[in-house]
Amino acid sequence: MVATDIDMPIDTPDPTDPIFALHRGGKMQVAATVPLRDADDLSMSYTPGVALVCEAIHADPEVAHEYTWVSNTVAVVTDGTAVLGLGDIGPAASMPVMEGKAILFKQFGGVDAIPVALDTTDVDEIVDTIARLAPTFGGINLEDISSPRCFEIERRLIERLDIPVFHDDQHGTAVVTLAALINAARLTDRDLSELKVVISGAGAAGVAIAKILRSAGVTKLSVTDRVGVIHHERDDLNVVKQWLADDTKDWAKPGTIDDALDGADVFIGVSGGTIAEEAVARMAPDAIIFAMANPNPEVHPDIAHKYARVVATGRSDFPNQINNVLVFPGIFRGALQVRATVISEGMKLAAARAIADLVGDDLTEEYVIPSPFDARVAPAVSKAVTDTARREGVARRPY
Amino acid sequence: MVATDIDMPIDTPDPTDPIFALHRGGKMQVAATVPLRDADDLSMSYTPGVALVCEAIHADPEVAHEYTWVSNTVAVVTDGTAVLGLGDIGPAASMPVMEGKAILFKQFGGVDAIPVALDTTDVDEIVDTIARLAPTFGGINLEDISSPRCFEIERRLIERLDIPVFHDDQHGTAVVTLAALINAARLTDRDLSELKVVISGAGAAGVAIAKILRSAGVTKLSVTDRVGVIHHERDDLNVVKQWLADDTKDWAKPGTIDDALDGADVFIGVSGGTIAEEAVARMAPDAIIFAMANPNPEVHPDIAHKYARVVATGRSDFPNQINNVLVFPGIFRGALQVRATVISEGMKLAAARAIADLVGDDLTEEYVIPSPFDARVAPAVSKAVTDTARREGVARRPY
Repeated sequence: MVATDIDMPIDTPDPTDPIFALHRGGKMQVAATVPLRDADDLSMSYTPGVALVCEAIHADPEVAHEYTWVSNTVAVVTDGTAVLGLGDIGPAASMPVMEGKAILFKQFGGVDAIPVALDTTDVDEIVDTIARLAPTFGGINLEDISSPRCFEIERRLIERLDIPVFHDDQHGTAVVTLAALINAARLTDRDLSELKVVISGAGAAGVAIAKILRSAGVTKLSVTDRVGVIHHERDDLNVVKQWLADDTKDWAKPGTIDDALDGADVFIGVSGGTIAEEAVARMAPDAIIFAMANPNPEVHPDIAHKYARVVATGRSDFPNQINNVLVFPGIFRGALQVRATVISEGMKLAAARAIADLVGDDLTEEYVIPSPFDARVAPAVSKAVTDTARREGVARRPY
Repeated sequence: MVATDIDMPIDTPDPTDPIFALHRGGKMQVAATVPLRDADDLSMSYTPGVALVCEAIHADPEVAHEYTWVSNTVAVVTDGTAVLGLGDIGPAASMPVMEGKAILFKQFGGVDAIPVALDTTDVDEIVDTIARLAPTFGGINLEDISSPRCFEIERRLIERLDIPVFHDDQHGTAVVTLAALINAARLTDRDLSELKVVISGAGAAGVAIAKILRSAGVTKLSVTDRVGVIHHERDDLNVVKQWLADDTKDWAKPGTIDDALDGADVFIGVSGGTIAEEAVARMAPDAIIFAMANPNPEVHPDIAHKYARVVATGRSDFPNQINNVLVFPGIFRGALQVRATVISEGMKLAAARAIADLVGDDLTEEYVIPSPFDARVAPAVSKAVTDTARREGVARRPY
């Protein structure tokens, strides 16, 4: 789900506009889960009774996980540098998205998520700040932090913290894309290892999709950016794109995206922009097109359907919505459940397979991925994560 | 409300103990305030609709205050160094107190408060971390940070941020103490300027009480620590105690606390420890004793009543409970309401007077301060704060 090219009127909010009316006062609140009716209640939830719980945690830090809300919380942290397709709009303007994300965590995963918008874009400062917040939260969901800084921030936090750190723009998108691709390949009776795949976009989502597809067995992979196919012959590659070039060197050939699409089986768009119809027309038979830019897909479904057998977008008004709300609530639900120390590549692959499996025998061209409102999704993802965490020995809670 | 000398059994939590049973899973949650039933709801609260609100804030940051939850939120921030009377138990063990505080904010002030426990005790790091979090919150409530670090942290944050920063252990306690003293003086027909006051304790609460009493007109003031009366003749004073010595130099004389109490009108205990009955017996007629250590007051009410006319404690099981829950919810409710840039000395004085005024004609020895469950308190404090903020020109929201 990549939103780009949003061109809405910038204007003083009209309080009668339904979107502004909905957002008035924000979209979330905190609430007590214990009674506070009288002095007795106060003496249990606050002083002096609370001291008993504090002392027990001080004596054994493990107690905190059962007797505070920490182990059900996730910080949704941004610096406001890559918000939807709007770009670097800053921390204050990012808050409506962070609140939206937080309430999706709760609605779909039962996770108490707290928006955290940081007034710094410095990598060291972001890492230090989040690390110092760690006792407050059970997990860290990085959100809308621009590439390539997002990769270093995530890597350093994973090294430094023993709670799960997950950059949803990367891995949420990657997991749900893989889930849809598993089913699209099954529908067209092909193995992932045979598919010739082109990813348009080498930001957070494109890089993570490339990684997970490689882990899942895809070998014929090209990734393109605005310049063209990412390849070692180019001299304009940053560290991340050099990694991409290295990881796709067996298949990717220098050229434009149109060159790359010639004979390709799969197009995955996480870039915005528009692909020429002539290029789409030259894809292989039974083509698979995931045009995920929002609100304007790289290939409009009406065009895509002329040449492709399976078409998915990031939009809710077409079939096959590739939406990472299918992923992050269940991923964190499971990780928190077993107090996983990390969200591993194995958990992500298992989550993708679990989402794909839910489609089962109902698989059709119009149904390669469950609906965001399919209530089976989060529990299935959570179970895939907890099972994998236990198998990999990263679950600190044994039940 | 100062809790000290809590000696409860440190043991593996007994899940059937009512306090642990109450605390299981923590005491709070987040909740959506908007519906998320279907794709239409999602498209309003999240992509693509949310982008409209983000862009409006990006164009005019003021919009954030109406259309996000930020302006109703307060971070309850600690480093876990001075938690209740338990001392430096660390951030994880402080969380039950921070959660308790957060739900009191909601219950009494309608404020959405988020516990934030920091994994650092370094002053620079704490200040930097909180400053970077500022876009996330409408105000900062510092909590249970040890003295004298708490003074510098608060001062630097107030300088650096344009949202209210309030160290409740200082100012909440100071405001409610002043409120009770205003009524105790009224009851005994004396002016604050005549009262000879001894404060036992020169930590966060003692320093702040000294400051607010001076602002309210008290001139005959001694503050004592473990060594004795704080006075320039001593060579062991830190910067804060040097300030106290300077500010009380017109009245305070070198000596022990027992010396100081000889002929004193008011004893204010925010220290723990026990005052000898002989010293209490030498206080002036119509003495006022606020023995606020929890759960063991510095002077037990049974002893205090033998010599004093007005007795208050921090405990709920005696009359006149001096509890800062009377203060912080209404202070922040008011400050957030008008988007005050600071919580000024004037607002604190106005809050104390508003609390005292609620007692009105019902004033007796047993009723110098309203109950924490008196529903009139938070609105009255809030109104005192908003009125003062407007008068002082620090209200950014004019209504």
